[in-house]
Amino acid sequence: MKEALRIGVAGLGTVGASVIRILLQQAAVIEEKSGRKVTVTAVSARDRNKDRGIDLSGYQWFEDAVAMASSPDVDCIVEVIGGVGGMAGKVIETALTNGKHVVTANKALLAKHGQKLAILAEEQGLALAFEASTAGGIPVVKVLREGMPANRIRRIYGILNGTCNYILSRMEMEGLTFEECLKDAQKLGYAELDPTFDVEGFDTAHKLAILASLAFGTQIDADSIYVEGISSITPLDLAMAGELGYRVKLLGVAEYGDNGLEQRVHPTMVPRDSAIAQVMGVTNAVTIDADAINELTLIGPGAGGDATASAVVADIADIANDTIPLPFGRPAASLHEGKRSAMQRHEGGYYIRLSVHDRPGVAAGVASRMAEVDISLESILQKRTGAASRDRHGRSGEPVPLVLITYAAEEAKIRSALDKISSDGLLSEEPQLIRIERE
Amino acid sequence: MKEALRIGVAGLGTVGASVIRILLQQAAVIEEKSGRKVTVTAVSARDRNKDRGIDLSGYQWFEDAVAMASSPDVDCIVEVIGGVGGMAGKVIETALTNGKHVVTANKALLAKHGQKLAILAEEQGLALAFEASTAGGIPVVKVLREGMPANRIRRIYGILNGTCNYILSRMEMEGLTFEECLKDAQKLGYAELDPTFDVEGFDTAHKLAILASLAFGTQIDADSIYVEGISSITPLDLAMAGELGYRVKLLGVAEYGDNGLEQRVHPTMVPRDSAIAQVMGVTNAVTIDADAINELTLIGPGAGGDATASAVVADIADIANDTIPLPFGRPAASLHEGKRSAMQRHEGGYYIRLSVHDRPGVAAGVASRMAEVDISLESILQKRTGAASRDRHGRSGEPVPLVLITYAAEEAKIRSALDKISSDGLLSEEPQLIRIERE
Repeated sequence: MKEALRIGVAGLGTVGASVIRILLQQAAVIEEKSGRKVTVTAVSARDRNKDRGIDLSGYQWFEDAVAMASSPDVDCIVEVIGGVGGMAGKVIETALTNGKHVVTANKALLAKHGQKLAILAEEQGLALAFEASTAGGIPVVKVLREGMPANRIRRIYGILNGTCNYILSRMEMEGLTFEECLKDAQKLGYAELDPTFDVEGFDTAHKLAILASLAFGTQIDADSIYVEGISSITPLDLAMAGELGYRVKLLGVAEYGDNGLEQRVHPTMVPRDSAIAQVMGVTNAVTIDADAINELTLIGPGAGGDATASAVVADIADIANDTIPLPFGRPAASLHEGKRSAMQRHEGGYYIRLSVHDRPGVAAGVASRMAEVDISLESILQKRTGAASRDRHGRSGEPVPLVLITYAAEEAKIRSALDKISSDGLLSEEPQLIRIERE
Repeated sequence: MKEALRIGVAGLGTVGASVIRILLQQAAVIEEKSGRKVTVTAVSARDRNKDRGIDLSGYQWFEDAVAMASSPDVDCIVEVIGGVGGMAGKVIETALTNGKHVVTANKALLAKHGQKLAILAEEQGLALAFEASTAGGIPVVKVLREGMPANRIRRIYGILNGTCNYILSRMEMEGLTFEECLKDAQKLGYAELDPTFDVEGFDTAHKLAILASLAFGTQIDADSIYVEGISSITPLDLAMAGELGYRVKLLGVAEYGDNGLEQRVHPTMVPRDSAIAQVMGVTNAVTIDADAINELTLIGPGAGGDATASAVVADIADIANDTIPLPFGRPAASLHEGKRSAMQRHEGGYYIRLSVHDRPGVAAGVASRMAEVDISLESILQKRTGAASRDRHGRSGEPVPLVLITYAAEEAKIRSALDKISSDGLLSEEPQLIRIERE
């Protein structure tokens, strides 16, 4: 029997507490699977006296997580403090330079310093494992790192933020506004008091940056990602999407095409009968689109203490099993810069909702501006509300929504047509634009 | 640089040819990921002269795959001959006793001899890898073996046979009969000339046996699986399912409950808005229901040369990477017998379609027989066709379908109620019974 693998847990929030609880509950299973005991020996957090529902008396307590990371009584540090730089970064670096394996859930830190930390880990033959950083309990890091060597991946996309998916699901099902659903999400603990990071797409972008790197062997580059959140989505957009056979999801999409690597986060219309469209509530989903397997979709919990801890514990079990994978599935130094494709070069279908003045010639004016830049329209829908008084032609003079669905077109062309339509004075407010992702 | 991993491919059907093609295409990627070259050095098949669309001239040819399995020029045998016992079994045993790793897609052989072969592999510290045996390109073996140590799995279920799912999908969408769709599936190469193995559920049972063993640590026991195929399903059943908010799928289900391990394969009604219900055509899907992650669903290609080869190549890359997992994720000798739960003890909802004589008191007679054994009915639907002539009460005297949906009830009670209803002379043909699986 090998010696026990001794774990130090840095951070005792929901995930840290779940990791400790699960390692106890599953001790016999993990020992059977790896032929080695896994035991927590040390913990560290800010407040020693907070009740976390677990008994910490058997573990060495460290006021300073960095000190724990160099303790001779620990073989593997679980970093679940969170946050970029500061404490979390120091803990990981200290652990790796002191010969300790690291398991982390810290997507923000990885998105920023992942390559550097991976190189450090590789130099020492140590693990830097981060299954928990992306899509919570869905084992997508393992699948990309180890399960796809036969495939050239074309595209990876997914629902990577449970808060946004919860809000969009409720908006659609109950016809509520973004603001109303956000408030409920905050009450239920699904959204932070300052929800910007989630609802404006930045959390999704961090996760996408990690997935893209694993999928394409490119350097992590979260800053170049085009990011758009869900706060501008209205119940009308969701209703129109439904009528047109779509559902709106906040997707992170990374695609390697002729123009290079395109990485984008935005509300997206997906076909209503696709697997990803069925993913409602806080659930996450990732689809890998590749040459040998065609399409693989993973659906599961994206957050929550136990689900995230499940990913952490799987990484720990790999280490206990002497499976020390390269963090990105290939030498981190070989991650290539990759050509980045600008969002203006993006090609796809678009849903465009205009608010136009209800008078003759407006639809024709809009359509001809689209035609000028060779954009073909798949459909035009004009919705008149019943409220306003109308003239004998049925027109009210009030703003009415005009919805266009385009065939595949270049983002730059769409933007240029919309600028012209706006200059023509046809619009009573900013146009709404939602990209369509087809399977 | 480590020495190259030398592969011998036994069997050059669609999968074997794909493995060779993909190993060439991905050679640089695999070398980068594992720090080791992977090269095919030897091949074996029945007919040397058949055109397989690949150039075999660079490989050593073996008339006898068993001889290849003991060749000093091979480190790893890929067994894609198929079939229980006979050649495939001998090749694997010979390879393992001669110190060679084995990668196999042979579910039937594993379902029968998996434990014995795994013990043999473990004794030698060799890999016996079988990702390709179950759900084709979906990496469910890796996920169960390595991704779930934090979880107590409650249930695993899935669409594991593409032929059946293709037939059921087309029957539903086009209102066709089983026989019509089977013929088309045979024309398209999705079904064998003798389709029994697929359509009667045996193929699903073999895969389920492997998944259950990985999920619950139990010995593989395909023979104790309750198996029912799809040949009795009618377009009427699918239409009724649709009306009731369900869709019919052939599922393999393994569940560890209070009565022990329940393993069953049968047509199943799943909620129409569930992720698994969206899986149409030859696609496969597996859902793992466990305590920490709650629910994880994997959807992808269940068959096809490239998809299956993708799984084979992932196993090869693990071996190249010196990742030699225990075949079942724990010592094979420790797989426990497990208490098996009889199908009569199964509890769930049921769809029961009776063909009753259209006369007074029949529905009441049926309902009271159900009530006698404490079965509660969620709904009763009576469908009268328009064709037959009717008396002044609207009754034709002809057989009409009467559909019952029950709340959770024990299989034994359902069977006993149906026996009584049949003895009462109320039925004009055998009842149709489809189990309901709720999320």
